[in-house]
Formats: sequence, structure tokens, C-alpha cells
Amino acid sequence: MALLETTAILDSLSDSGAAMIDTLTAVVATTTPVVADTTSAEAAVEAAPAVDIQALTTSNVWMLLSTILVFIMSLGFAVVEAGFTQAKNTVNILFKNTLDLCIGLITYCYFGFNLMYPGFEEGSAGLFGFAGFGLPAPTDADGALDLAYNAGYTYWTDFLFQGMFAATCATIVSGAVAERIKISAYFIFCFFLVGFIYPIMGSWKWGGGWLQMMETPFYDFAGSTVVHSAGGWAALACIIILGPRLGKYVDGKVIDKPGSSVPLAVIGVFLLWMGWFGFNGGSVLSADPALISLVCVTTALAAAAGGIGGVIGGYLTFKRLDLGMALNGILAGLVGITAGADLMSPNEAILIGLVCGIVVVFSALAMDKLKLDDCVGAVSVHGVCGVIGTLAVGVFGSLAGVDQFISQLIGVGAYLVVMFTASFVIFFILSKTMGVRVSKEHEETGLDSHEHGIRGYTIVFDN
Amino acid sequence: MALLETTAILDSLSDSGAAMIDTLTAVVATTTPVVADTTSAEAAVEAAPAVDIQALTTSNVWMLLSTILVFIMSLGFAVVEAGFTQAKNTVNILFKNTLDLCIGLITYCYFGFNLMYPGFEEGSAGLFGFAGFGLPAPTDADGALDLAYNAGYTYWTDFLFQGMFAATCATIVSGAVAERIKISAYFIFCFFLVGFIYPIMGSWKWGGGWLQMMETPFYDFAGSTVVHSAGGWAALACIIILGPRLGKYVDGKVIDKPGSSVPLAVIGVFLLWMGWFGFNGGSVLSADPALISLVCVTTALAAAAGGIGGVIGGYLTFKRLDLGMALNGILAGLVGITAGADLMSPNEAILIGLVCGIVVVFSALAMDKLKLDDCVGAVSVHGVCGVIGTLAVGVFGSLAGVDQFISQLIGVGAYLVVMFTASFVIFFILSKTMGVRVSKEHEETGLDSHEHGIRGYTIVFDN
Amino acid sequence: MALLETTAILDSLSDSGAAMIDTLTAVVATTTPVVADTTSAEAAVEAAPAVDIQALTTSNVWMLLSTILVFIMSLGFAVVEAGFTQAKNTVNILFKNTLDLCIGLITYCYFGFNLMYPGFEEGSAGLFGFAGFGLPAPTDADGALDLAYNAGYTYWTDFLFQGMFAATCATIVSGAVAERIKISAYFIFCFFLVGFIYPIMGSWKWGGGWLQMMETPFYDFAGSTVVHSAGGWAALACIIILGPRLGKYVDGKVIDKPGSSVPLAVIGVFLLWMGWFGFNGGSVLSADPALISLVCVTTALAAAAGGIGGVIGGYLTFKRLDLGMALNGILAGLVGITAGADLMSPNEAILIGLVCGIVVVFSALAMDKLKLDDCVGAVSVHGVCGVIGTLAVGVFGSLAGVDQFISQLIGVGAYLVVMFTASFVIFFILSKTMGVRVSKEHEETGLDSHEHGIRGYTIVFDN
Repeated sequence: MALLETTAILDSLSDSGAAMIDTLTAVVATTTPVVADTTSAEAAVEAAPAVDIQALTTSNVWMLLSTILVFIMSLGFAVVEAGFTQAKNTVNILFKNTLDLCIGLITYCYFGFNLMYPGFEEGSAGLFGFAGFGLPAPTDADGALDLAYNAGYTYWTDFLFQGMFAATCATIVSGAVAERIKISAYFIFCFFLVGFIYPIMGSWKWGGGWLQMMETPFYDFAGSTVVHSAGGWAALACIIILGPRLGKYVDGKVIDKPGSSVPLAVIGVFLLWMGWFGFNGGSVLSADPALISLVCVTTALAAAAGGIGGVIGGYLTFKRLDLGMALNGILAGLVGITAGADLMSPNEAILIGLVCGIVVVFSALAMDKLKLDDCVGAVSVHGVCGVIGTLAVGVFGSLAGVDQFISQLIGVGAYLVVMFTASFVIFFILSKTMGVRVSKEHEETGLDSHEHGIRGYTIVFDN
Repeated sequence: MALLETTAILDSLSDSGAAMIDTLTAVVATTTPVVADTTSAEAAVEAAPAVDIQALTTSNVWMLLSTILVFIMSLGFAVVEAGFTQAKNTVNILFKNTLDLCIGLITYCYFGFNLMYPGFEEGSAGLFGFAGFGLPAPTDADGALDLAYNAGYTYWTDFLFQGMFAATCATIVSGAVAERIKISAYFIFCFFLVGFIYPIMGSWKWGGGWLQMMETPFYDFAGSTVVHSAGGWAALACIIILGPRLGKYVDGKVIDKPGSSVPLAVIGVFLLWMGWFGFNGGSVLSADPALISLVCVTTALAAAAGGIGGVIGGYLTFKRLDLGMALNGILAGLVGITAGADLMSPNEAILIGLVCGIVVVFSALAMDKLKLDDCVGAVSVHGVCGVIGTLAVGVFGSLAGVDQFISQLIGVGAYLVVMFTASFVIFFILSKTMGVRVSKEHEETGLDSHEHGIRGYTIVFDN
Repeated sequence: MALLETTAILDSLSDSGAAMIDTLTAVVATTTPVVADTTSAEAAVEAAPAVDIQALTTSNVWMLLSTILVFIMSLGFAVVEAGFTQAKNTVNILFKNTLDLCIGLITYCYFGFNLMYPGFEEGSAGLFGFAGFGLPAPTDADGALDLAYNAGYTYWTDFLFQGMFAATCATIVSGAVAERIKISAYFIFCFFLVGFIYPIMGSWKWGGGWLQMMETPFYDFAGSTVVHSAGGWAALACIIILGPRLGKYVDGKVIDKPGSSVPLAVIGVFLLWMGWFGFNGGSVLSADPALISLVCVTTALAAAAGGIGGVIGGYLTFKRLDLGMALNGILAGLVGITAGADLMSPNEAILIGLVCGIVVVFSALAMDKLKLDDCVGAVSVHGVCGVIGTLAVGVFGSLAGVDQFISQLIGVGAYLVVMFTASFVIFFILSKTMGVRVSKEHEETGLDSHEHGIRGYTIVFDN
């Protein structure tokens, strides 16, 4: 049946794991065609590759709604970062996150998508490929969108879902480097990150490149490494070059810089959690009822356990009920489950979430010890817990095994080395040419009044 | 056809009303198998109990998205309570609501779900049952998830949807008892509430217990009583034991304690309204187009009428356009329609919403007369309006009648007596052992600085 | 293959115009039954017009979720307006937006829906029609909801989706006239706008009236003109009669009135963007996979380009990175793409968004030059960019051509003239009778303390 072949080929280009291919093929195989009377006038058409339009329609609805959920993660990042940073820099951080999404989508439309899904030819190294500029949507003989593109979604849905992921990656960086980065340098860096580094490295796994071609393919269901660690290591490189905020580390002490609004931080984390149901649930790439519901359950339980882990970690270190750590714990649990959300049992999801929630606290402390000033804990949440989640695929769940663990280590290592190096080089060049840090005066009085001309909050009353 | 029987049995255990059973059976009966050519290779498969995978897939998408909508109600509760309480306690209330969800989901995973859906045997009293620990997902012969579990959703979806409901129940309490409860006592109480009382009482109706076994079964479509009154009566018991906030009732006057942020309260109420489309819409337990769209319409109209009712009530009592009462009126309308959202006409929904919106104002006033200090009006909104909505099922809509009204009274009374008593006993024991109230000093200076070490808002500018 | 052909036919009909009404009947007639074995027991049923229940179920899920997304636009408008206006008027603007939705839904239920979709008879002028009061849901012979109403959604979904649109229209006005309008006058005006003017004018296009009956029908996919320009011109009429806020234009200078909270404005714009996926995506009126995904892509890209356009425009005029202009640019791009979201290519969507994003800045400047005080830029965003987007349908995309451009001009002109005139007359009468502006004292001390008795923010700490 031609559809099976087409589907299999398409899957190998765009799915998020080898297991998927089997699953989807199985789905297609067991879905019997709705057209039944082979003696009718329509019989001749059946020779052509058939599209199960009803199954596609349902899956595409799920995929589009997942895309919309991932979209709202951009707002989640914006407000969590605004909540956790000082009031004098609120407009700046919101500006960066808003434009990240705008620039990210346009960039991904013109070349990021085609860099990430190049369709590597047989025998290629799987390191670099390019499918052209713009969005050349496949059409059928009549010029209509070719629905045989994929059994689970259309070409447009594919682009938009992946484009929202790309925008997420840049946004991870913005919180870490907040309160002292020069905004022009930030956007130039993000342009390279979202436009080139993220999609090229993403192609290694999701585009069918070398990480996917390994005998035991590296597995990363929805991007613990491909998206989150990627963003985390980029942030780490920038932080090292930028240096800490003025007055953050004084005489061996870490000086607290209170964020403007805890409610904003909470809103942000809940929106991220909500969006993550689409981030992970949509990564099933179809509306397969068993898989999407399992993925939402493991995602929810890992987040919940992460929140509890963060409270435990925060209590052990600070002897208080630390809401910031609870929130970062939730995000850590979400990052951790992302690599294997489709493979884990509820117990395994809870364990992964709990570990990530506790580790993120100690990772954040270690960063401060090293005087690496990460305003929102992005490196710990996305970088470190991305590693834990990715390695967990080799230890827990249905793929666990030594070969898989080695493949996971290779993938994790490759991302750490290449992403960190590439980011470091680009940001270093920027630092030596245009400069990456605002003046001492701007940093002290706040970026908002200098770069944006307004304040984040104007809550005064005449009476 | 085995599927029909299985479906019917499952429905009778987990659906939200007798009408459902007919409807769903009808749907299954009229949905012709997609496999048609009985001479094809797939013929052999037909002998096995067939799952209409396409119908399941669509319904499961609706149910999962409803689950995600109910999830966001946790954020809605968090911010509406943070908005309506004083700035010095903002972090505390956000911490409670965030952890409510985390602890609630984990607790419900390990035993709440199995307490609530025990599968009562024939001849049992329907008072208590337990199906075991953890999430023993049903599998087919090949070890894959058994999709014959339900025609409208998978086992995982079932757990997550119900788990989000359980988390909601605890969150209702948190606002009422805010600004003076000891956080350790709060979490211990919530553990018992979400882990034991809520699921055991829930099993009486939704688990097929005695309220469902009555000759004229008690009807509560999505939980006016089972979820909302339940939370309201638990809150009432705690409030009585806790006593009012310091300086709330002075010389016979009610002293206003202004909430930190009206915008937060508005965001919270709109998020709750949005989530309620999933709360009620998902309670159809399938994507039945007639039912889910009717339910969303009655839900929206009751909320809108409730908002108008709240404004009317607020104007009658305070001679001003009271936004707080408008917001509580919306919530009151939503609580009121929840018991019969699938039974009411648009006019009936508007009437129920309007009555609840007006009543909630006078109920809140009465609470203050009785010096029962409910910081956010939770008892009035969820307890009182839950009763109105549940009784309305006996008066309006397709089930109206004397027998039904009596059954509704029995259900309402059982919940009031048992939930209030159980909550009172547990919280009373806590008050006599560990204590349930913070020190006078902590209450005056605010819970945030003492328990959490940070402030909710730090909006200061150097320049 | 009958199904594919049917789909193609459905696609050609699935726009949001009045064509809908005819077509929907056609759709039901041409939808091939999924039942294939004509010798089976179900054969008798086939004589009646069959409903493809599975396709309807999936499409209805998409339509209802789109409705929920449009719902959240009301919150988006509420917070973006609260963020952009002064802290002393925060409660007032939130009150207006909350009640707009409540009153709008009830009004639309009782007569707005029936005014907008009157079912014009052949030979009628297509100017005015009325289908009666309330929601007379069509039922089949058994009294159940008649699912043959539409192939893509039920009667209830239809009402709710359109009702959310109607509420949006009023909300556009509230921001423009903020900080000085008398609240009683505002609500009376909105009652006429949402209850009569909006639905009657909407019937000209979406109800099958004269704009739809033209030889080359006016095209407005999701309401650049029918909803957004409509709201914009109503706002303009009110602004002219109201006059500017005290102290806004002094000695030829425009005095800045800083909004209370930039984070709120950002939250609002992102919620509006999210809701717009439902606003435009739902306007496909089915879950057609090719169309809904294309529409979401053009919507996202136009918004992104609009944000970039706003930054460019803001930098050219103010020499700073203006977040307010970026946010208004996003909204401008969204308004602009709305008329032809189903017709445009990605490049065309980006171009339309970019133009709207830049134009909105200069339009806002021009408004200030004319001393037309629009607190949130509503006239520029919704009025002006609605025109650009509507005219773009004659220039770009699959309908482009001279005849279409002329039809677009006629539609744009009709809306500008009739909506502006009707709004001006009503608001002028109100100004001469009850008065439309608060006293100087109320305006200076803020509307919140006078009309609502509370403040928007109470962020003080004892310690």
C-alpha cells in the first residue's frame, strides 16, 4: 500500500523517535479505509495513495492545538522572567521575549525549517543539509495542499509546531542573561541561535541526521536535549562571557536581587506547564489516544513531583518554604520528562521529576558558588535537567539498556560541546566587536529607562 | 456486541448522569463500523470486540483538552486568591495553591483515583471501596493499553481528568482560610481532604455508590455538589475553627482588608471561566457534538448572568458598581450550572446563573454578620451556590420532578453533613495538637516574610 | 473517491460568508454516508439525509475549542487595556470589559444572533432581517438537536462562536474611551452596538445580505472589517464626542499618561494572539486540515511581522525600542490578516503584517496630531489596519483582482460610513441627555474610587 511507504518515509524525516515510526505504521495498518464499495464509480481513484482524511483531520486538530499550547509557552517564559528579575528591567525582558517569538517565527519560516528538516540523502554524514528558502508547501496535481505529506498533520501544521519550538529555544537564553546584556548583541546572538545553530543541530536527530543514523539511535522524544539543554548551554556560554550583575557577588556573599512580582512568576510557570502538554503531547505527531494520554500523564506527574522536589531541596538548603524553588522544580521536572515522556510509567515519571526538582536547587547553588550569575536559573533548569532526563531514557522506560545509555551519552555530549562552543565563539566575537554589556550607569539605573523610555510599573495614586 | 455491553458497564460507573448512558449507547449504535467489505483480509478481526478507534481518538482529544482546561483552573484559583488577599500574604497563598496541585496529583495517582472509582460489587452498600494502589492501566493481550476501556477516552485520560478535579477541591479551601492558617496544618488537612474524603465521598455518586444506586439516582453532572459544595463545606469547617483574621470584625463593624491586585483577580476569574468549559464540557465524557456544545452554551450563559446578578446584588447592598461581586457572581453562576449543565435550556441556565449571582452577595454578607471570615467568599460561591445548582436539577431541565428533587436534597444533605463533620473533626484535632493558626506577630507582619522569606511584589525604582 | 470529492466541495464552501447558509444545506446533501454495505440492517436509514457524525464530531471539537480561544480574547482585551491605562482607573476598565462579555453574551442570545443570521429571502434587499427571539435550536423528529444543521458544527456551537465575536466588538471600544467616559453611558452605548448595530451590519456579509449578494461578493474571512473596523469606527465616533482626557494635549504637546503595568499589557497581547488562532482558525467553520493549518500559519506570521513592523515604526519616530508599539504592531498584524487569512501565502501574510505594524505607529501619531485621544490605540489598530487588511484581499492572494478590490472598497466604505454615523448619532444623543463624561474631579482623582470604591492595586507592606 503506497500510503504506508509514503508515511514511513515522511515519518523518518519528521518524527521524534524511531519508536514512532513503528507506532504510526501500525496505526495506519490497522485503520481500514472508509471507502468500502469497490464496485462504485470511485474505485479507480483507490489505486492512488489513499489519505485517511478523517484520521488526518482529527490528528491535525490535536497537532494544531498543541502548537497553540506551545505558543503560550512564549508568554510563560516572558512573565516568569519578568517576575524573577528586578522591576527596573521589566520592560527590557518583556521586549526581548516578545521579539524573540516574532523574529524566531520569521527566521524559521525563511530558512530554519529547511535547515532542520533537510531530508538527508542516503550515505550522507547527516551533519548538514538544506532544503531551500521559504515554505515550499507540497501540492497535488490540482495545486491543492498535498495531504499525503503526513498521516498526522499537514505541512503548515508541521512548520508552525516546529517554529514554536525554535522560538522557545531563544527564550531560554533571555532570562539567564537578563539585567545587563546589550539588547542589540542579544538579538544578533539569537538570530544565529534560532536561525542556524538550533536547526542545524536539531537536524542531527529530528531531521534524520547522524544522531538518528547511529546503530542504536539517540532518543529524545520532545527535546530535553534538542531544545532545552541546547538553550541551557547557549545561556551558559553567554553568562561566562557577560560576567555577573554588578553587586551580585560581594565579599564572597551572594546578594539577593528580588524579582519584581512573584504572581507573575507563578503565572509564567503555570502557563509553561500548560504549554508543555502541547510540547510533549504534540510530539506524538498524531492524536494516537494511548500515546497522547500517556504523555500528558507522565508530563503532569513529573511536573508535580518536580515541584515537591524543589520544595524539599529549598527547605534543605534555606530552611524555608521557597516558592521560587518550587516553581523551578516544576520546570525542572518538565524538562526532565521531555526526553522520554512516551516511554515512562507513572512511577518512573514521578522519580525523574523528583530527582530533577531536587537537583535543580543544588545546581543553582553551585552556579552561584562559581559566580555564574543566571538570573532565573535557566542553565540549571534547562541545561542540567535536560541532561538528567535524556540519560534517564537509557536507565528507565521501554528503551532502557547499555547501548541506549551510550547513545544518550553521545547525544548529550555532542550537544554540550557543540552548542557551548558555537555559542561561545559567536558571543565572544560580539563581545570583542560591538560589546555585549551595557554601561555601568545603565545597569544601575535599569535598562528600561535607557533603552525603552518607560517603566514596567506605574502604580501611583493622586489621592 | 461485546463493546456495547462493556461500554454500558463502564459508563454506569464513571459517567455523569443517566442521560449519558442512553446517549452514548445511541452513538455507538448508530456509528456503523468503518470496516465494510467482509470478504477482505480484515474480516477475521471483527470477531474480537471492536473499538471504534476513530471515534475514540476524537473523543479522547476533546477529553484531554478539557483536562488541560481544568488544569488551568488551578492557576485561576491561585491568582484570584492572590488578587483578593493582602500583599503581605501573596507568596503564601501562591505557595499553597501551587503545592495543592502538585500534592493533589501525586496523591490521586497513588490512591485517590482508586478510592473514587472502586467498582462497587452488586449488593454492596456503596459507601466505601478500594481498587488498589498506583495506576494499574488495563492492557490487552499484547501488553498495549486496552482501548476497550471506554468508548470516549483512555485509562490515562480518565485518571488525569479526574485528578485535576481532585486538585480543584483542595484549592477551594485555600482562599477561604488565607492570611492566618499555619501552612503545615493546611497541607496536612489537604492531604486528608484530597487523598481520602473527597474521593470516598465522590465514589458515592461518580464511583457508582449509594447516591447513584438510589431508585431515582442523585444527579450531579459535573460536580456542583461533589466538587464545589464539598470544597465549600470543608472551608466552612476550617473557618469556624480558625476564627476571623485579626482586626476583621471590630466593634460590630466589618473592616475591609483590600486585596493586593484587582487585575490578578480578574485574570483568575477569566481563567476559571475558561477552565470551566473543560470542567463541564469534559464531563460529557465523550465529544458528543450535541451535548458538549449545549454544555458550553449553558456554562457561558450562566456565568454571564451570574456576573450581572453579582453587579445587581452589589449595587443593592453597597450602592456602587462592585467588581468583586461581579467576579464572584460569575463564579457563582458557574458553580450553579455545573450540576445540570447538560439538562438546562439557555433560559434556565440564565435564570440559575442570575439567582446564584445575586444570592452569593447576600450569602457573603450573612457570613460577615456571623463573623465567619472567608477571605475570598469561597463558602458562598462554592458551598451555597453548589446547593442552589444541585437543587435546580429537581426544578428545571429534563429531569425535573418531585422524586428527583428529593434525591437532590438527599445528596446535598449528605455532602453537607458528612463533609462538614469530617473536615471539622480533622481540623479540630489539628488545632488541638499542632495548632492551626500562626502567631499574632506573624499574622500582622504577614506570612510571606516569616514562612517564605520573600515578598510578593518588589516594585521600587532607584531613579 | 467520493470522500475526496466531497472534501473538495466542502473546502470550496468553507469560508465564513453567507454562502455558508446555502452551502451548509448542500454539504449535508452531498456528504456520502460512511455506511457502505447496503444490504445491512442500516440500509433503511440511508434514505434520510445522512449526517457524517464522525466528521461533524471532529469539526465541532475544533469549533468549540476555537470558541474557547475567542473567549480568552475578552481577558486579553481587559488586561491589555488595564496595562495601558493609568492605575487610578484600573478597576473601571476591568469592570467594563468583564461586563461587556456578560451583557454581550446575554444580548446576543436573546436577539443579536437572530438579527445577524436572519436568513434573507430571495429578492430581499439584504439590509435588515430578524429570525426571532431567543435560541430556537432546530430539533429532529424525536426532539433531539438536529445535527443536520451544519456539517461542521452544531447550532449551539454556532451561537457561542458568534456570540464571542460580538462581545469582542464592544471590547474594542472600551479601551479607546477609557479614563473619562461615564460608565452608564458606556453600557447603554454598548447595548445598542452589540445588540443592534453590530449584528445588523454583520448580516450584510455573514448573514447573506447585500454585501454578500453583490456580483463579486465582498470578502472578509474572519472580520477585519465586520468585527475590527466596526469596533474601531464606533470608538472613533465616541472619542470625537468625548474629547481628550484632561491634560493630554497641552500647549501643542502630547503629554504621556503612563499605563499601570507593562506586564499586563504583554499578557493581554499574547492572550489576544492566542485567541486569534481560534478567531481565524474557527472561521474556517470546519476542521478542514489544509485550511485551518494554513490560517494558523498566516495568522502567526502576520502577527510576528506586525511586531517587527511596530518596532521599526517606533524606532523611526521615537528613536527607542518601543514595547508599546511592538505590542500594537502585533495586534495590527493580526487585524490585517483577518480578512484574508485563508487566501494568503506566507510571504503575503508577512507583508500584510509588516505594513500594518508600521502603519499603526504613524496612525497613532496622526490621531494625536488631531487631538483624538485614543488611550490604547484602538482606532489605529482595529479601524485603520482593518481597512488595510480588507483591501489587501483585492491585491494579494487567490481572489485578487480589480472587481474584488472594488467590492472590498464598497464594503470598507459602507462600514466606515454607517458604523461611524450610527455610533455618532447614538453617542451624541447620550451626550445631550444623560451626559457621557465624568466630572473633572472624578477624572482627576480617578474613576475607581468614585464609581467602584476600591483601588486596582494595594501593594503596601507593614514591615
